[in-house]
Amino acid sequence: MKKHIEKIKVLFEALPYIRKFYGKTVVIKYGGSAMEKDDLKESFARDIVLMKYVGINPVVVHGGGPQIGQMLERLGKKSTFFGGVRATDSETMDVVEMVLGGKINKEIVGLINKFGGNAVGIGGKDGRLIKAKKLKVRGKDMGHAGEVDVINPQVIENLDREKFIPVIAPIACDDKGNTYNVNADSAAGRIAGALKAEKLILLTDVRGVLDKQKNLITTLGLSEARKLITKKVALGGMIPKLKCCIEAVAGEVSSAHIVDGRVEHAVLLEVFTDAGVGTIIRRGGVKKK
Amino acid sequence: MKKHIEKIKVLFEALPYIRKFYGKTVVIKYGGSAMEKDDLKESFARDIVLMKYVGINPVVVHGGGPQIGQMLERLGKKSTFFGGVRATDSETMDVVEMVLGGKINKEIVGLINKFGGNAVGIGGKDGRLIKAKKLKVRGKDMGHAGEVDVINPQVIENLDREKFIPVIAPIACDDKGNTYNVNADSAAGRIAGALKAEKLILLTDVRGVLDKQKNLITTLGLSEARKLITKKVALGGMIPKLKCCIEAVAGEVSSAHIVDGRVEHAVLLEVFTDAGVGTIIRRGGVKKK
Amino acid sequence: MKKHIEKIKVLFEALPYIRKFYGKTVVIKYGGSAMEKDDLKESFARDIVLMKYVGINPVVVHGGGPQIGQMLERLGKKSTFFGGVRATDSETMDVVEMVLGGKINKEIVGLINKFGGNAVGIGGKDGRLIKAKKLKVRGKDMGHAGEVDVINPQVIENLDREKFIPVIAPIACDDKGNTYNVNADSAAGRIAGALKAEKLILLTDVRGVLDKQKNLITTLGLSEARKLITKKVALGGMIPKLKCCIEAVAGEVSSAHIVDGRVEHAVLLEVFTDAGVGTIIRRGGVKKK
Amino acid sequence: MKKHIEKIKVLFEALPYIRKFYGKTVVIKYGGSAMEKDDLKESFARDIVLMKYVGINPVVVHGGGPQIGQMLERLGKKSTFFGGVRATDSETMDVVEMVLGGKINKEIVGLINKFGGNAVGIGGKDGRLIKAKKLKVRGKDMGHAGEVDVINPQVIENLDREKFIPVIAPIACDDKGNTYNVNADSAAGRIAGALKAEKLILLTDVRGVLDKQKNLITTLGLSEARKLITKKVALGGMIPKLKCCIEAVAGEVSSAHIVDGRVEHAVLLEVFTDAGVGTIIRRGGVKKK
Amino acid sequence: MKKHIEKIKVLFEALPYIRKFYGKTVVIKYGGSAMEKDDLKESFARDIVLMKYVGINPVVVHGGGPQIGQMLERLGKKSTFFGGVRATDSETMDVVEMVLGGKINKEIVGLINKFGGNAVGIGGKDGRLIKAKKLKVRGKDMGHAGEVDVINPQVIENLDREKFIPVIAPIACDDKGNTYNVNADSAAGRIAGALKAEKLILLTDVRGVLDKQKNLITTLGLSEARKLITKKVALGGMIPKLKCCIEAVAGEVSSAHIVDGRVEHAVLLEVFTDAGVGTIIRRGGVKKK
Amino acid sequence: MKKHIEKIKVLFEALPYIRKFYGKTVVIKYGGSAMEKDDLKESFARDIVLMKYVGINPVVVHGGGPQIGQMLERLGKKSTFFGGVRATDSETMDVVEMVLGGKINKEIVGLINKFGGNAVGIGGKDGRLIKAKKLKVRGKDMGHAGEVDVINPQVIENLDREKFIPVIAPIACDDKGNTYNVNADSAAGRIAGALKAEKLILLTDVRGVLDKQKNLITTLGLSEARKLITKKVALGGMIPKLKCCIEAVAGEVSSAHIVDGRVEHAVLLEVFTDAGVGTIIRRGGVKKK
Repeated sequence: MKKHIEKIKVLFEALPYIRKFYGKTVVIKYGGSAMEKDDLKESFARDIVLMKYVGINPVVVHGGGPQIGQMLERLGKKSTFFGGVRATDSETMDVVEMVLGGKINKEIVGLINKFGGNAVGIGGKDGRLIKAKKLKVRGKDMGHAGEVDVINPQVIENLDREKFIPVIAPIACDDKGNTYNVNADSAAGRIAGALKAEKLILLTDVRGVLDKQKNLITTLGLSEARKLITKKVALGGMIPKLKCCIEAVAGEVSSAHIVDGRVEHAVLLEVFTDAGVGTIIRRGGVKKK
Repeated sequence: MKKHIEKIKVLFEALPYIRKFYGKTVVIKYGGSAMEKDDLKESFARDIVLMKYVGINPVVVHGGGPQIGQMLERLGKKSTFFGGVRATDSETMDVVEMVLGGKINKEIVGLINKFGGNAVGIGGKDGRLIKAKKLKVRGKDMGHAGEVDVINPQVIENLDREKFIPVIAPIACDDKGNTYNVNADSAAGRIAGALKAEKLILLTDVRGVLDKQKNLITTLGLSEARKLITKKVALGGMIPKLKCCIEAVAGEVSSAHIVDGRVEHAVLLEVFTDAGVGTIIRRGGVKKK
Repeated sequence: MKKHIEKIKVLFEALPYIRKFYGKTVVIKYGGSAMEKDDLKESFARDIVLMKYVGINPVVVHGGGPQIGQMLERLGKKSTFFGGVRATDSETMDVVEMVLGGKINKEIVGLINKFGGNAVGIGGKDGRLIKAKKLKVRGKDMGHAGEVDVINPQVIENLDREKFIPVIAPIACDDKGNTYNVNADSAAGRIAGALKAEKLILLTDVRGVLDKQKNLITTLGLSEARKLITKKVALGGMIPKLKCCIEAVAGEVSSAHIVDGRVEHAVLLEVFTDAGVGTIIRRGGVKKK
Repeated sequence: MKKHIEKIKVLFEALPYIRKFYGKTVVIKYGGSAMEKDDLKESFARDIVLMKYVGINPVVVHGGGPQIGQMLERLGKKSTFFGGVRATDSETMDVVEMVLGGKINKEIVGLINKFGGNAVGIGGKDGRLIKAKKLKVRGKDMGHAGEVDVINPQVIENLDREKFIPVIAPIACDDKGNTYNVNADSAAGRIAGALKAEKLILLTDVRGVLDKQKNLITTLGLSEARKLITKKVALGGMIPKLKCCIEAVAGEVSSAHIVDGRVEHAVLLEVFTDAGVGTIIRRGGVKKK
Repeated sequence: MKKHIEKIKVLFEALPYIRKFYGKTVVIKYGGSAMEKDDLKESFARDIVLMKYVGINPVVVHGGGPQIGQMLERLGKKSTFFGGVRATDSETMDVVEMVLGGKINKEIVGLINKFGGNAVGIGGKDGRLIKAKKLKVRGKDMGHAGEVDVINPQVIENLDREKFIPVIAPIACDDKGNTYNVNADSAAGRIAGALKAEKLILLTDVRGVLDKQKNLITTLGLSEARKLITKKVALGGMIPKLKCCIEAVAGEVSSAHIVDGRVEHAVLLEVFTDAGVGTIIRRGGVKKK
Repeated sequence: MKKHIEKIKVLFEALPYIRKFYGKTVVIKYGGSAMEKDDLKESFARDIVLMKYVGINPVVVHGGGPQIGQMLERLGKKSTFFGGVRATDSETMDVVEMVLGGKINKEIVGLINKFGGNAVGIGGKDGRLIKAKKLKVRGKDMGHAGEVDVINPQVIENLDREKFIPVIAPIACDDKGNTYNVNADSAAGRIAGALKAEKLILLTDVRGVLDKQKNLITTLGLSEARKLITKKVALGGMIPKLKCCIEAVAGEVSSAHIVDGRVEHAVLLEVFTDAGVGTIIRRGGVKKK
């Protein structure tokens, strides 16, 4: 009995957070190890389901993972990258769309549903959710690599209202019927903005934003964050993620989080505890959460 | 960090129960020690608030506790009891109504609100919620002691729909404007029936229903429960409570629980774990929860 | 038959007023003789019920009357007053809350229901309706005597929408769970403001605001009213009431009325006829009604 | 002041009736003197407006009055009647439709609006409200004289919901686009049935249904009424009206009233007093109102 | 089969227009030949029904046509005109109202319903839709000839929302209960403004606005149109219509069209093709449609 | 101009069909040539968009086409078929899901959106739309080949209500998280049943159901259809499709159509003309459409 009572008491530690985020929207960019290891996948799916049941509206935007590369390899397609962006010809685009929209998206939906959620997986073409334009890297045409132009969040709002959990593949379209692959972090950030989300959470495979001594920076104000991205050296791959966070927080998103997805229950830890597992970017930047 | 992850994991043990009772109504008769000891009062208030936040609709019906007796004593009023029922003259009725509706009801509201809920306290006159008729004990007129006649649950449904937590004092009225004091267990049972509640939980100061060897009976089917109340000896004060439970379960309430309110978080233990802290009465009677 | 036709014709004299106030909210501070004498109590209850049926939304805020003093006396508690405010220790607060919330409030609910209304009685803790802070009179701590800080009218709006008649006891709370007794006139005025009521009606035991010659002032513009309260001598106990009226009318309440509650059907006379039974305070101050 | 109080008291005599019919629908066939004399027209319009403001939904179905005959005469058209029904050729139909739908209907609308109502006048073609078929009198083709076939009450329900007062001309159509003139009593009865009205009130120019001694029969049960129409002699023109009432009451209309429209405020007298001004037909037939 | 496929292909030519005007309101002034010739009447009714079914909300405002003159003549009433306006005494007003509201209005309703629509015909008194004031022509009292003062579009919005097609006679009232005949073009223009319609279409019996060489002007900007009406000579009867169009477009109506109603399906041609059958007035004035 | 008028007239030939199917649901199984040839793809997308704009709710269920085979071949996977069903191992299932859900589904969405629709593409996992169980062919385990068990149409109803066009891939799940490939005809039939659709349309690459003389059978009653499937010889691949149709029509679907998808605008021809392009199965079987 005592054990049970102890457990009940633990529930109450979550209550202040539940109250705080009740009815709010949290957009999570899902990717990296959290999308590859079975235990992390399961802990992620459970986090999402629990959030939904306690009255928070999670919106999942996923990336591609290594599965795209594997499939391209099996099909004998080679990709060239330019400035970190894959030059995406039509055939490659087809493979990317199939893997993202047909395989990964539905796998996440299945996983969430398995743990009691009711997810609906869509891409950026559905309901004209993500309109993109051609991405040019230093003037170079990258084929079907696109950048987000406009978000029409109606289909997500609709699914939210009806108690579904939206799961979104970072595929986009333009008015002429072209398909684009867009960066998932960037799509998540823009979707968070369009939904006026409470939080944007980017799952990564690092501890968060580190300073020169490789210590974790737990909190960043907008201006600090802006300064940081001018000192490109130290941050490694963090710059594009930081930019997404800055754009979101400069808009109507209350806070953005770069979170270590290798930690079990990383999402709930970030939302439901003061511990946090990464770097938080917020307008003021001072107090935690 | 590990500690935090452990705690998050505990949350998930509650998830199957949250899912099961999502959107359902649970009527709790609140009284006894749980209404007297500060730590139990607080643990009760927290239980109610948590339930509301995870999508369950708790409805609290409270009894009077020793505060009525204390006030009557201070005012020099003596009560005579007959068959366990207080012969209630007009002056006594006034004191009962003041203590129940003005003091205890608002104390519970204040407590729930203090822990983050949004309670509204009413009595049976409000919105004509509880209509009563005179209670006669073996033909004897008991004054303003009444028994529940009709429940008009509209005001509760309305408060529920608007996300308030209803807290109800067992005062009733009739069409002629008379006031009655009704038994709180019985009011709770009838309200549960009118709301087609998922659960009726009666908090007591005993372990539950005991057999002849003073062992706790954890589960009772309807027919077993009916048999039991014919063997009056063993049950002590349990018979009226059992009758309430039987009536509720014979109606549209899925299960009724006689629960040991002296245990911290007794309500959540009953709703959110398989442990349970008392006796459950249900139609079939077989499986737990 | 003729008699019947005459009566029907009388109905039509009310029609212009019914049309004018259709769908509007009228907040009535109920107290004094109107709350003590049986015939006035009944005429008040009938006024409220009729208003509700013809499409007006009455909201009743009641005071305490002599019943609080009587109960304190019976319990051997003596009160000290300071600047007209009762120094309210915890024990006194308990008695005040019981009498206001448990006795008077429910008596009014019962009375309104007896005449065909559907009232719901609540206090300022319910739905966090009235948030108060400590009232200090010339720097002196008055215990649980409070002044209104914030009105959260959601619970009243909700009851109105569902066709109930809200009856409100002037008890308040703060975020720490403390209970306060607040002035009923002041609570009524602030509630009228929060509801953007059409009218605020304060029932008193005098004819209204009188000039130096003891003649009734029937109409006051805002600026006249403000001037008047600086000349404290003549007005006797009217100053706090006038202040409430000024604050309400300076806000979004169309007019405030200080009305002689000793007159039968004082409320309906004020709302449904041009006769009026007291002083009206309005922004312009010129035309009656 | 006393005079005002007396008047207020009169209001309360109406309250039990207001409560009883709150939210209910009352269909009134308007015609005869009540539609011709200026004072009666005004008293009728006021009755309708007052009913609407106190929460009752009046629906007015009007007849033609002598205005149709006058216009036909001015245009030199002669009508032949057969079994009391006008043989209606196309030219006559045009005149009937103009007078009913263009003149009388809009006059009533204007009158109701003048006294503060918000009426909308329509005919049976509008929203396909009244579908009719050819009326044959003893096998004889009566041209555009029709009998009600089907009522589609959607347009009335819609106007009611939006707080308008529907005023209906007894013109009808069929699926082929033909226009028919239907009996107004009959249209009112069928519309009352389709709306499941609380009351059907037929205004006439007689005292009501009389017995052989020319005494007013104040109440008729269904079976009595049915017997009565077999004894055709005594009733004069009452038989078609009685048939309408019987059909309505045999359906879902609670009571039907044949009322003396020559009495001022005949409608309100019938609805708001026990006096009544005619004959009531109801299923049981026993108690008044 | 081929023939069928060809026809299906024709449907698609309408699709861009259907998409463009989906959910929008189009106010059509109906009159002239289109209201007199059987084939044009039918083609008009079909146009309205089709528009409704494809998601556009047509609102029909009709004029009087020669039927008013014919009826006045039959009744031996002579009309004098002054500045093109009929001096309207009470008797004439009665005839106008009967013919407009009782005959023509219901004929149009019947016609639309015959082709599958669900029309409801009302006038400006209904729901106080059109409030007018006396029209004075050069200081001369024109009796019941009025000009539009205020539009209360609630009743139209209500009918639209419930999927009815409103058909409106240009009769108006004032607050004193007077009836007025107002110009139908002007009523249509003002109603279009009150409804923030997408289009105002005035059906005429000419090709549209012609220049000095009698060539059709297909498009007019606001400023061009304003200039044009100062050059009164060339335009003949077009000036009042142009003024209506200018007022509508200067308000919130996107475009106004003066259209040749002698052409079959003139309304649909204007709405569903680029052909157009008259003159379009729009703010910018440049591009067609 | 004449040409335009001719075209407008063609619109009206569609009107009776638009009226008939207004607000109704039509489920279309899309596959075969209609999904492969560019002109047919475009004509299909246009048909769907037009239907949506004229108030019909199309729901598209697509098959896989040769694209699955091509992808499997490219990846070097060989499929064995048993009783016409592909034995589907996990790797094959992955490919099927990717091609169906990621490639074909989104291609159809993109196509519909390109022509002005607003489609949302989902699979049977989304919102738990299609629950399946293992399909056994003569006792043989077919791996991930499944048969439809339960349809939860909530997500489709939701999209319909919000004006989206649902496009559905025939992927399904079970409660344990397994993925199944289900027959698209069968999924379309069951979805039509769950939505109580007006029509089920199966696009094929044949003329329809043929009799022994290879003549098209245009109409089949339920009992005729049932007889036909016992005579397996003549029908070739039609039997499973006929079974779907029979099941749908035996349920609450009004009619089922086996339609030649090789004909341009086959869907609209079937819905909007009497021509029809295949076989219709209906309960009575007699009259066309």
